[in-house]
Amino acid sequence: MSEQKRVYRFGTDAQGNDVTEGGASMKFALGGKGANLAEMCRIGLPVPGGFTITCQTCVEYSGAGNVWPEGTLDEIDAATRDLEHRQGKSLGDPHDPLLVSVRSGAPFSMPGMMDTVLNLGLNDDSVQGLIEQTKNPHFAWDSYRRFIQMFSNVVLGIDSDYFENALTEKRMVAGVKSDSELTAEQLKELVCEFREIAAEHISADEHPELVIEGKAVFPTDPELQLKLAIEAVFGSWMNERACIYRKANGISDDLGTAVNVQVMVYGNKGETSATGVAFTRNPADGTREFYGDFLIDAQGEDVVAGIRNTEPISDLKIKPVFAQAGEQLESIFGILENHYRDMCDIEFTIEQGKLYMLQTRVGKRTASAALKIAIDMVGEGLISREEAVSRIDPAQLDQLLHPQFDTGSDIEVLARGLNASPGAAVGAIVFSSEDAVAAADEGRPVILVRWETNPDDLKGMVAAEGILTSHGGKTSHAAVIARGMGAPCVCGVESFSIDAANKEVRVDGADIVLHEGDIISIDGTSGIVVLGAVDLVSPELTGDLETILGWADTIRMDSSKGTPNRVRVNADNPADAKLALEFGAEAIGLCRTEHMFLGDRKNIIQSFILTDDEQVKAKALEDLLRVQTDDFLQMFRTMDGRDVVVRLIDPPLHEFLDDPRELEVAIAKREVEGAPADELEALRKRLRDIDGMVESNPMLGLRGVRLSIVYPDLPLMQVRAIATAAARLKRDEGLNPHPEVLVPLVAIAQEHVQTRAVIERVVAEVAEEFGIRLDIPVGTMFELPRACMVADAIAEHSDFFSFGTNDLTQTTFGFSRDDAEAKFIPIYLHKKILESNPFETIDDVVVELVKMAVDKSRATKDGLMCGVCGEHGGDPASIMKLFNVAGVDYVSCSPYRVPVARLAAAQAKLEAEQGFSTQDK
Amino acid sequence: MSEQKRVYRFGTDAQGNDVTEGGASMKFALGGKGANLAEMCRIGLPVPGGFTITCQTCVEYSGAGNVWPEGTLDEIDAATRDLEHRQGKSLGDPHDPLLVSVRSGAPFSMPGMMDTVLNLGLNDDSVQGLIEQTKNPHFAWDSYRRFIQMFSNVVLGIDSDYFENALTEKRMVAGVKSDSELTAEQLKELVCEFREIAAEHISADEHPELVIEGKAVFPTDPELQLKLAIEAVFGSWMNERACIYRKANGISDDLGTAVNVQVMVYGNKGETSATGVAFTRNPADGTREFYGDFLIDAQGEDVVAGIRNTEPISDLKIKPVFAQAGEQLESIFGILENHYRDMCDIEFTIEQGKLYMLQTRVGKRTASAALKIAIDMVGEGLISREEAVSRIDPAQLDQLLHPQFDTGSDIEVLARGLNASPGAAVGAIVFSSEDAVAAADEGRPVILVRWETNPDDLKGMVAAEGILTSHGGKTSHAAVIARGMGAPCVCGVESFSIDAANKEVRVDGADIVLHEGDIISIDGTSGIVVLGAVDLVSPELTGDLETILGWADTIRMDSSKGTPNRVRVNADNPADAKLALEFGAEAIGLCRTEHMFLGDRKNIIQSFILTDDEQVKAKALEDLLRVQTDDFLQMFRTMDGRDVVVRLIDPPLHEFLDDPRELEVAIAKREVEGAPADELEALRKRLRDIDGMVESNPMLGLRGVRLSIVYPDLPLMQVRAIATAAARLKRDEGLNPHPEVLVPLVAIAQEHVQTRAVIERVVAEVAEEFGIRLDIPVGTMFELPRACMVADAIAEHSDFFSFGTNDLTQTTFGFSRDDAEAKFIPIYLHKKILESNPFETIDDVVVELVKMAVDKSRATKDGLMCGVCGEHGGDPASIMKLFNVAGVDYVSCSPYRVPVARLAAAQAKLEAEQGFSTQDK
Repeated sequence: MSEQKRVYRFGTDAQGNDVTEGGASMKFALGGKGANLAEMCRIGLPVPGGFTITCQTCVEYSGAGNVWPEGTLDEIDAATRDLEHRQGKSLGDPHDPLLVSVRSGAPFSMPGMMDTVLNLGLNDDSVQGLIEQTKNPHFAWDSYRRFIQMFSNVVLGIDSDYFENALTEKRMVAGVKSDSELTAEQLKELVCEFREIAAEHISADEHPELVIEGKAVFPTDPELQLKLAIEAVFGSWMNERACIYRKANGISDDLGTAVNVQVMVYGNKGETSATGVAFTRNPADGTREFYGDFLIDAQGEDVVAGIRNTEPISDLKIKPVFAQAGEQLESIFGILENHYRDMCDIEFTIEQGKLYMLQTRVGKRTASAALKIAIDMVGEGLISREEAVSRIDPAQLDQLLHPQFDTGSDIEVLARGLNASPGAAVGAIVFSSEDAVAAADEGRPVILVRWETNPDDLKGMVAAEGILTSHGGKTSHAAVIARGMGAPCVCGVESFSIDAANKEVRVDGADIVLHEGDIISIDGTSGIVVLGAVDLVSPELTGDLETILGWADTIRMDSSKGTPNRVRVNADNPADAKLALEFGAEAIGLCRTEHMFLGDRKNIIQSFILTDDEQVKAKALEDLLRVQTDDFLQMFRTMDGRDVVVRLIDPPLHEFLDDPRELEVAIAKREVEGAPADELEALRKRLRDIDGMVESNPMLGLRGVRLSIVYPDLPLMQVRAIATAAARLKRDEGLNPHPEVLVPLVAIAQEHVQTRAVIERVVAEVAEEFGIRLDIPVGTMFELPRACMVADAIAEHSDFFSFGTNDLTQTTFGFSRDDAEAKFIPIYLHKKILESNPFETIDDVVVELVKMAVDKSRATKDGLMCGVCGEHGGDPASIMKLFNVAGVDYVSCSPYRVPVARLAAAQAKLEAEQGFSTQDK
Repeated sequence: MSEQKRVYRFGTDAQGNDVTEGGASMKFALGGKGANLAEMCRIGLPVPGGFTITCQTCVEYSGAGNVWPEGTLDEIDAATRDLEHRQGKSLGDPHDPLLVSVRSGAPFSMPGMMDTVLNLGLNDDSVQGLIEQTKNPHFAWDSYRRFIQMFSNVVLGIDSDYFENALTEKRMVAGVKSDSELTAEQLKELVCEFREIAAEHISADEHPELVIEGKAVFPTDPELQLKLAIEAVFGSWMNERACIYRKANGISDDLGTAVNVQVMVYGNKGETSATGVAFTRNPADGTREFYGDFLIDAQGEDVVAGIRNTEPISDLKIKPVFAQAGEQLESIFGILENHYRDMCDIEFTIEQGKLYMLQTRVGKRTASAALKIAIDMVGEGLISREEAVSRIDPAQLDQLLHPQFDTGSDIEVLARGLNASPGAAVGAIVFSSEDAVAAADEGRPVILVRWETNPDDLKGMVAAEGILTSHGGKTSHAAVIARGMGAPCVCGVESFSIDAANKEVRVDGADIVLHEGDIISIDGTSGIVVLGAVDLVSPELTGDLETILGWADTIRMDSSKGTPNRVRVNADNPADAKLALEFGAEAIGLCRTEHMFLGDRKNIIQSFILTDDEQVKAKALEDLLRVQTDDFLQMFRTMDGRDVVVRLIDPPLHEFLDDPRELEVAIAKREVEGAPADELEALRKRLRDIDGMVESNPMLGLRGVRLSIVYPDLPLMQVRAIATAAARLKRDEGLNPHPEVLVPLVAIAQEHVQTRAVIERVVAEVAEEFGIRLDIPVGTMFELPRACMVADAIAEHSDFFSFGTNDLTQTTFGFSRDDAEAKFIPIYLHKKILESNPFETIDDVVVELVKMAVDKSRATKDGLMCGVCGEHGGDPASIMKLFNVAGVDYVSCSPYRVPVARLAAAQAKLEAEQGFSTQDK
């Protein structure tokens, strides 16, 4: 490994010629900071010289248990000598010492690591050289004492308070208020004291190299200082905070960090010096303006510390001493934007009127700023529309589509749960659907708080501002319905012990009991629950979003570049369908008909399921046919001319019945209370009937197409309703309805074949009844591994494929989502068994199964339409894999995810066709 | 299609030269009967001449809605003319008429179809020819009246009773007791009457061709008689009884049946004629002897009808008139056995001293006869050992390994359930495990009757003679455990409404209530439940079985012909292990450790699961470690020198806890009863704890390797117990234990990697503690599609693969076995969506997944041992696919299936290597 280059120079040589070896493209070798320092040197910007030690060196160093890779120290030594030569100064020189900063710089921004040591190279000799050069003993001794404090803290791990206390005492003794009022002599005394403090607290065990005559002392040798500082940076890569940060942000431990050793420049050399940070545009709203602050006579850390008030960057040019540097900085803003073709974030220092650039990078921005900047840059001719589209993080769009907690508010977290459906809400606690509806009728905003919701709660969920459950995962009833409605929802708040009967919640860990009417705020984007009302920021569909999505549509639908990447919506009612059209969905990819069996209709379906009386059954079917036909009339009218994929009833029928456990408890109570025998017998009969339908694993039970085969009446009623609605609209209203029937949970080709046959018979009957021609395609829902493996056989009898990747993930992994997300997926993520939650971002093996089915289907039937209607259809990373790896034609997602999916679909197209990559995170 | 040959001749021409066109290999064209008639002609046996119309003709005829394929009638006509020419007789000839029989003959024996019409060709003219030829008017008229009756019944669908009534009346009028006493004149009168009866009942709609001058009449034209008879045979292929039989026996509807038209011979031409059936060996016990019966002066149907007492075939030679035919028959027995190289079943007729063979086929036999015949034939040099092994139906062995209902007993079925575990049992009903144990202590045989069993019932299940449950499928707890123990079990007896509290069962459909102590008999082989005690026949492990299994072992283990097909056993306790060794298992392929947590130990594991007190947890673990170490000591000692694959705990922990529903009901009752607050609170706390662990879909929940990752204490305790037991035996007893650890339910390679790391750490600790070397391989259980798809990655870190094909079937299909077998698989079989229950015989797609994993594993690690430990490992059809398609090294099954698996594994080897096929069914 010793042949590998570990140290890269940047800056100019003694003759002013650029000797930079790296560049912006080397982020993974030099870290973000090092790569951009090199890039700025290359484009001729004023950057203090230095060198960068690679990230790979850090990985090897920490991987070997903090042992230097062979030859590395020699290479660093050579780079140091070279830097001395370039600068015409030497480390530790008592007349003109080279002083350097040592900074870490990982490929991605990484709080929590050892950050910076400034003024390295100072000791009792070199401080004299600094005085000689600057003619400023006060500055020199102040720099020295800062160095000792900083080095002791970040390299030697000594608490800064020891030094701060000494400093405070010195100020008191001197009778001054600020450090700058201390005299050079007093600062010199402080240096002595600081070195004693350091010596007292250095761990001799950890730093044997600092032990002299049995006692650890502060290092005076600049070479040793440099080595220790670099080791500290490398060592900090694996410290706990850094590891936690990386895990939280999905950054690999294998990247390592680079170390930048750079000649010091000083913003604290008096009134002609300054330091500042800036953005080339406003990162909050995207306005094209200089945005930033500076501090006169200060070092970078002072700006960050916020001790003194900063001045706006626009004032720089106004001040005569900084006018020239200010002009130069403005022109550099332009150069950087032109070079990086993006908004940049920079750090600079002005030393005695001369400007130095210390850092630049592509700047972080809010979602709305991201949109505006991208659109403006297209207008300015800086970037293409394709680049603009590729730069917006689709996940960030969520900020614009839901209300959020005002980030200005002070928030005290009461509890945390799963971020089940984005957006924030504030309201009074209610414990039942009825109470929620009653409150909504009175105009009172409420949060529906339930152990878990069930189909009965739908009205209450619609009425409430938001939903909180103490149980259930991200695919629980509450979560799925809330996401579909775009309602904020926090699920699985385990610290809430809900006693709905007594209308109170005991909050574990907080010594508090909440009652009905108490105001809480929930944030479904973060999963946070707050006691009391938090201010909310409302969503706006800005023109910028429309512009970008318009461009995205042009890109993803461009059929000159392969099959379009289409976006459909999952919508179960006309309101959702209408909303989805506004959000840009082309068609309905999934209409879940069981959602039409709730509310008042639940009684009808219960009577259908539980009776043995054929007349009662027939009456129930007739009632359901009437209301479902109305449902479809409205849906098809709203979506006139567009495909509406209607899935036949999918869940096990017992989901529509009472909970047998609750019923048995009620019976037991009535029994002890001495209820009459006939009442008890009727209740017991009902319980027996329900128990007869209960299943051990409902997810793998009598549902989906199995219902069509075992109890065909219900799904055939649905087909009749679909066909009747379509026929009426076509014949009586002259409309152009496009219903398609989706057969769920197919595992075996014959299931589809036999179900299709009866569907076609019903459609033909209706067509004959209306005297018109009715073409209703019949497709297959792929949710099981077996189906994917026999997709060629299924394709022979199917008109389209729709992949239910939620269930496919469940069976491929053998994970029940509800159970897995509550019980072990978080631990799997923590232990790195999984890189991401496969129910959020689709797993590569599941993608492989989808691809297998898509490929097999097309081998059988060229051009057979394949889409995804699982929740992955709204996840940008999944959308990329689904279009570009699995090769599907469309994704279908909940209405509020449609804009996200449109953007992600366009980015997938760009990635596939032009090699554009989406923005770094 | 008209080029295809549809009619095949058999027999000799006028010169006595054989003109047979078919042979035994053409079973699917000519049916079993036709193919064997042709074969007998070819080897020179005396067979009346004729021709066979192919099965394919039947398929086309019935497929086209009973329309003759073009050209077929011409071909039949030509064959008829040819037959006339060969016999020197003509159909309908008034001097020497050709008379024929028309018989159906499908590729597989098929009760329920139109069978036979004899004497076809008779009419008022030809009967005179018959009289002229035979000089026997009585015989001729009797033949004629029989023909009208038989033709009217089987071809025209007229109830035989009309004819029988007329016959009875004729006897009464004549004052005679038997038909044979009727005079020729009286028989002639009967012919007239029979024709009138027929004319009266012929359906003119169904038989327009029989209508003459507006009235349907019995057909007199022999050509028309022949055409109608053939049509009736073809038409009967799709009649209801035939369809039901085919479905029940897994015979395809697409095979069709052939029709055999053959010259009549008569066993009823007086005292020198006879007819009989025989086997070349005894089909009940396999003894080499002539076995069969004959009747003098009779037709075949008289033997079957059982009106007259038959004589044993051995008496044939004793009677002088039959001596020659008898000698000839004996020599034919030998010829047939030599030719078919198997025991044959034959039908013959002796017409006036001359022997004719009318049918032969390989004879059906009992399991013990099958063994004896195969072994004897090897001894006789007729067949090889390989052929002997390939001829035994492994499924039939079950008869020999479990007690059965005595087939001689009269049985009245009370109820039917699923045949969950083979064998029969008789005992008094008990409703609880405790009562079963109490009864067993007193020596009273009992049947444990439960809604469904749970781990608590284990002792009761061991104590009972058999188990009956009203719920649950073939993989329910009761079924799996019963099969494992070899105990008879009938599951899912839905007509049993069990009220365990009141110790009674209401039997739906029977007006009966059973009480504790009532005696019932159950047959787990058929799923039948009988009220009262049925006589049982006990199993015997005969020497013949041992001989055949020994040969099977030699075949399957012959490493000169590829990898051996190994057989292991699933055993969870030393008794099973011992039994399995006796049954010939080589090793334990699966030891399910959770079965070691039952009985008294359940309290310990409950205290472990439910406590938050670390000391209580530690104590529970210590107790479990002690008892599990003892378990493994016994197991490893029993299996010394053999592999014992121990699976870490697999089921969700809540399976060890109380049923929360029962607990909540109990709490509700105590509440109403006014129980003290602290009692209620303690109960509620327990309920909350249990509810916290409950899962929506336990099959896909926190179980298997997930437990090792989330709650590692329990599985690591198990590893410690395994390692400690092995170390003790090795160090202290000088034994050679071979434990292997199996990690269940892996979906992700990292699950295995991390679990393996901790397992190895524990093993190393124990090895160090004992100061010895311990090598314990760690393998992966494949039960999920994802695992199969990433098997190459898993193989890098795994020492062996074991496929749990039950769970793999569940996730591949998305079928919960318990729910699917109870709710929809029977319907799927009925509707032909499935050809067989995939939980009984492994599905081809599941085999494909297993093969994918096996291939990937071997690409990574050559020679990695792959086995199957699901129940498919005991199913012969599955064993064939697993060895020959998936390519596994071994199957592992419950102890009582080991002999079956040994035989099936040998047959798989033969099929793969030598093209031997197993016996036709």
